[in-house]
Amino acid sequence: MAIIVHKYGGTSVGTPDKIKNVALRVKKARDAGNEVVVVVSAMGHTTDELIDLMHKVTHNPDPREYDMLVSTGEQVSAALLAMALQESGCPAVSLTGGQAGVVTEDIYRKARIKEIKLDRIKKELKSGKVVVITGFQGIDSKGDIITIGRGGSDTSAVAMAAALKADVCDIYTDVDGVYTTDPRIVPTARKLKYISYEEMLELASLGAQVLHPRSVECASIYNMVIHLRSSQKDDEGTYIMSAAQIVKEAGKMEKQEAVRGIALDENIAKIGILRVPDKPGTAAKLFGALAGEKVNVDMIVQSIHSQGTQADMAFTVERPDLKKAVEVTERVANELKAEKVVSDADVCKVSLVGIGMVSQPGTASRMFETLAKEKINIQMITTSEIKISCVVKAEQGRKAVQILHEAFGLSKVA
Amino acid sequence: MAIIVHKYGGTSVGTPDKIKNVALRVKKARDAGNEVVVVVSAMGHTTDELIDLMHKVTHNPDPREYDMLVSTGEQVSAALLAMALQESGCPAVSLTGGQAGVVTEDIYRKARIKEIKLDRIKKELKSGKVVVITGFQGIDSKGDIITIGRGGSDTSAVAMAAALKADVCDIYTDVDGVYTTDPRIVPTARKLKYISYEEMLELASLGAQVLHPRSVECASIYNMVIHLRSSQKDDEGTYIMSAAQIVKEAGKMEKQEAVRGIALDENIAKIGILRVPDKPGTAAKLFGALAGEKVNVDMIVQSIHSQGTQADMAFTVERPDLKKAVEVTERVANELKAEKVVSDADVCKVSLVGIGMVSQPGTASRMFETLAKEKINIQMITTSEIKISCVVKAEQGRKAVQILHEAFGLSKVA
Repeated sequence: MAIIVHKYGGTSVGTPDKIKNVALRVKKARDAGNEVVVVVSAMGHTTDELIDLMHKVTHNPDPREYDMLVSTGEQVSAALLAMALQESGCPAVSLTGGQAGVVTEDIYRKARIKEIKLDRIKKELKSGKVVVITGFQGIDSKGDIITIGRGGSDTSAVAMAAALKADVCDIYTDVDGVYTTDPRIVPTARKLKYISYEEMLELASLGAQVLHPRSVECASIYNMVIHLRSSQKDDEGTYIMSAAQIVKEAGKMEKQEAVRGIALDENIAKIGILRVPDKPGTAAKLFGALAGEKVNVDMIVQSIHSQGTQADMAFTVERPDLKKAVEVTERVANELKAEKVVSDADVCKVSLVGIGMVSQPGTASRMFETLAKEKINIQMITTSEIKISCVVKAEQGRKAVQILHEAFGLSKVA
Repeated sequence: MAIIVHKYGGTSVGTPDKIKNVALRVKKARDAGNEVVVVVSAMGHTTDELIDLMHKVTHNPDPREYDMLVSTGEQVSAALLAMALQESGCPAVSLTGGQAGVVTEDIYRKARIKEIKLDRIKKELKSGKVVVITGFQGIDSKGDIITIGRGGSDTSAVAMAAALKADVCDIYTDVDGVYTTDPRIVPTARKLKYISYEEMLELASLGAQVLHPRSVECASIYNMVIHLRSSQKDDEGTYIMSAAQIVKEAGKMEKQEAVRGIALDENIAKIGILRVPDKPGTAAKLFGALAGEKVNVDMIVQSIHSQGTQADMAFTVERPDLKKAVEVTERVANELKAEKVVSDADVCKVSLVGIGMVSQPGTASRMFETLAKEKINIQMITTSEIKISCVVKAEQGRKAVQILHEAFGLSKVA
């Protein structure tokens, strides 16, 4: 008898009817002879509604009380799903994070899971029940309710699957898998059968936000296969696993492309700080000041200026942070006696992602050539082992994704 | 330093603004140098909304899952009140029933509280915090969430006050006390300063539903004084305490009236079963069958019929149960070879309540005379040590209350 872990997101349990549909899907898995554990998010916009309510009382919520409040959302959907399962003739029981033995660090709002004590879950499974667990939460050493950060239900599910030694963690969502790029930009984008943890992390952090990055990280640590799939269809989705496993599973079934996916991030802005006297500690000063103001910096490029004793630096931030970032940068530029600060919100970032790149030289030059042929000017470049990112003019971003998708042969086989 | 327990009902915490008002009231009690524990109900109609949601999934909810679901309502209001207190500069922490150490029987939906383990509450009080506790719930020996029945937050508050050895349990609600009768019927009805547990129980079960009867019962067991008062005003409300305490507190401050209050129950119907052969086991058969169908029977009157070998029986039920009750009664009447079953939904019940009655004979006859003078016919009578109830025609109920209120001198002193 296999142990199966399903996870359903807020959209999948957004209404009583959707909850009944989920119940039928879960029942099917159990009727096929499996032991089933289900992790659920809060219904639809419940969490946001609770937060709205909270903001009418306070704008500085105590993190402990915040967790106490928002954790009720998952408790409601878990209880309702257990009821729907029972209604469909499938024995079931819902458990809060605490009841399910999910022990976290003693940090409110963003704890990590330390341990899952499986006694209660195993007892319930043994008695023939489907176990429905509230995602996104656990308890700390004091018995207080702790949430593990937004999007944390994915992580709850992966950790639960790892603790239960399940073969796979099925994450049901409103998309049916991971695509070579956003199908709204490139209609011929192809659904990937497999993708590695590393590639998924790059794609997720680049804007293809189907899966919370922490859950992918957690899966990679425990080598847990995630099956990301649609809660509306029975089709297979995308398996997220280690590169080694993909080779084993897929064998020669898929061509090992250098580039596996292309991501577009349209929510960025660029800042340049020109002719900074080139001496040690300059970067630390600037990025330390930005971090102090909670500005997330993404790409960073530094180039020696022709003068030799001065450098130009450029970096990107999330677009809503631009104003604050420019203020901080101008203050630091003044201290450092830099010549000038420039900024541009009219940009976007196009990234190629693929583990194969490292062994296939020429990917970068092909990318640059492809963009040049269409007269798309590249403003910044950063590279890593499995990713190449270029900043281009905002209005050229979609075109860039389309021509790169074509050039790297990522489209569906007709 | 005194320990004070406040309880706020659903109306009193129905909106974020009302929660902020409650916070100010609680803060005031703490600033006066008290240790304060607050028990809260769910906001407004939250519990009903959760139950509506549930009914879209199932009509036969598992009691365990029901408790899991509805207990979230109090968790939300407790967390919000703790936040509002903190916002007003008053340290506070919210605790679920389980965290607060409220241990119940292992019965879902209607458990009784077995024990309150005070360690956590005392620790939080000692650190200077106001402790906000979810009413209506605890945990059982398995760690499952258990609710203690609707209206149970009053009982939670009284049990908490008893465990903490508080002097008084302040129950804040949307009425400002217990009146001699419903002021909508008699505008000169007087607010009572004191009322005994026994009187309160009779008045509550007779329709003056300001306080859950179980909470009064619990208070009487632990001799806990309940101060029932308005969450909108600072005035004193009504103290509910033992008759002995009232004498001690009030001394000669209040005249010891035979009748303390008059209740009207308009939600009843009357059933008669005529000429039942008078032999042992008849009543048991009839009322056993009614109980089996979950029909609550209130007043029961049996009279020997003039024939000597036959009896007439009459009883009252809640009006919505009339149809079912008549069916059951006709079936049993047939078995018992009774002559006839009659019923009447067009009735109501008027009751005089007062501990003093037992020592002041003549109360009953004065009641009957008063009603007779106004040509109000009495259809059934039952009496106890502290209560006399008469069934009269529905349309005469309000008039009966008015003239009795006048006759027994219960009106406000002008």
